[in-house]
Amino acid sequence: MKTKFWLVLLLAAFMLGAFANSQSDSTALLVKIEGEFMKAAADHGSQGYMAYYADDAVEAPNGHAFLVGKAEIAKTMGFLDQPDNHLFWTPVGGGIAASGDLGYTYGTYEFRSRDKDGKLGSAYGKYTTIWRKQKDGSWKVALDMGNAGQ
Amino acid sequence: MKTKFWLVLLLAAFMLGAFANSQSDSTALLVKIEGEFMKAAADHGSQGYMAYYADDAVEAPNGHAFLVGKAEIAKTMGFLDQPDNHLFWTPVGGGIAASGDLGYTYGTYEFRSRDKDGKLGSAYGKYTTIWRKQKDGSWKVALDMGNAGQ
Repeated sequence: MKTKFWLVLLLAAFMLGAFANSQSDSTALLVKIEGEFMKAAADHGSQGYMAYYADDAVEAPNGHAFLVGKAEIAKTMGFLDQPDNHLFWTPVGGGIAASGDLGYTYGTYEFRSRDKDGKLGSAYGKYTTIWRKQKDGSWKVALDMGNAGQ
Repeated sequence: MKTKFWLVLLLAAFMLGAFANSQSDSTALLVKIEGEFMKAAADHGSQGYMAYYADDAVEAPNGHAFLVGKAEIAKTMGFLDQPDNHLFWTPVGGGIAASGDLGYTYGTYEFRSRDKDGKLGSAYGKYTTIWRKQKDGSWKVALDMGNAGQ
């Protein structure tokens, strides 16, 4: 009886572990994509950045109204093409749906640029990104929001 | 041949309509829950508001670091209990996973309160909320982020 109890406990622990692992694996996929996303922005500026946005994406910039659609969002991302501007971000956590078609990440960002006097400095903030799997199997940004403070 | 073309076009339009409808139905569920969420906050202050948060929820307040866990978030929500403070929000859009366990809404908010001189006024902003279906079938906030501008 005692042995059976321990066997059940072991099995439960194993299943919990497997579940936790599959959860973190799912988020790990989005974290990996965020790494590629950041590299694309670093290597190819606004074009690289926008390549990760869905056509019907929504951007929620701090201090401005929602921007709806990739074309509208792209108009505001030209600043990524200036050589002194660098955007870095670090996912902290996230989640994914059981169906594997919707997920999210959240984390912190650093934006390095020159101020009015030409002095290099950094602004820091947080972000939340909602990811939607597209018909071609790729993951694209469905919504992105940022705000201040880390 | 021409008739067949029109039949295919009609079928495509019908399928698109059905798809759009199922999408909006799913989001409508979250919009309905957001209405109940806002009513709970209006009727019961911070307790009503926090009743819609998952235990492991994350809050991303503008100008502050992430708050992790319902208990940490609740500590910052006491302002909802002051009789002159009123928080209203209006979902603008959202989406849901095929598995129906993860979804999101985004929209605008208004926060009415008194300023330092006791004068009533409003602050406006935007929000994104990520919703996760819980084991008991209820939907709870998994992550909430707000920023400025509408």
